[in-house]
Amino acid sequence: MTGPLALGPIHHVGYVVADLDAALAALRATLPLEVTVRETMEEQGVEALMCSGGGGAIELIRPLDPEGAIARFMAKRGEGFHHVAFEVPDVDAALAELRGRGAELIDERGRRGLGGHVVGFVHPRSTLGVLTELIGAGHGDVH
Amino acid sequence: MTGPLALGPIHHVGYVVADLDAALAALRATLPLEVTVRETMEEQGVEALMCSGGGGAIELIRPLDPEGAIARFMAKRGEGFHHVAFEVPDVDAALAELRGRGAELIDERGRRGLGGHVVGFVHPRSTLGVLTELIGAGHGDVH
Repeated sequence: MTGPLALGPIHHVGYVVADLDAALAALRATLPLEVTVRETMEEQGVEALMCSGGGGAIELIRPLDPEGAIARFMAKRGEGFHHVAFEVPDVDAALAELRGRGAELIDERGRRGLGGHVVGFVHPRSTLGVLTELIGAGHGDVH
Repeated sequence: MTGPLALGPIHHVGYVVADLDAALAALRATLPLEVTVRETMEEQGVEALMCSGGGGAIELIRPLDPEGAIARFMAKRGEGFHHVAFEVPDVDAALAELRGRGAELIDERGRRGLGGHVVGFVHPRSTLGVLTELIGAGHGDVH
């Protein structure tokens, strides 16, 4: 399948956690993962890290802003799975195509995500209740 | 990273749904996905399908057995995200390594999953509350 909505590999799954270091230690007790990037993203009110064993990655996200979207998600759903991120060739083009198909978007245009990737979120109402991120393939310093 | 726990690409994410055809139609209204395999797996009490845009896949799972694990999961958590599946070189070796690290396993050995893949599940208690599947890389008729 080609075009702006050609979904490539699943880049990562994102989990919300209350304590980034405790969660990382617990996860690494099971799986030998290495942290590839860790950042505070003030504008999103989170601290996040990406860890991977060389293939698909897991993003751990800790809310900093108690009024932010991540804090509200965790208050409602608890810790655990938050989103899945699929690679697309061009995030802006994919979001435009989705808008044309009538999908509900969280981001109208791509924005900077963890590690410098261009990312855009689709509302879970358009994807079976699962928050879905589109992430630019091959850009940024995480892969 | 090498060894039996070298986590490769994320093969798919699995969502539980009440109605496989309605869920597929709703998802395809947003994302142009093709079904690659669809099967009833009596021993697991589910009907499932895998759909993909050519990269990472989404598995939709419908409980058939009202007393089964999937039906109980859906009764408790509702429809939506159920598990993430990472490719590993050898499922049995990875499960043995995890057991040695003290992880809690659902499957002690690999078993047949959707599309003929060898799969094994790790208990969510060992992976930050997220049910995690290990799936044999390069085997089976789905990829």
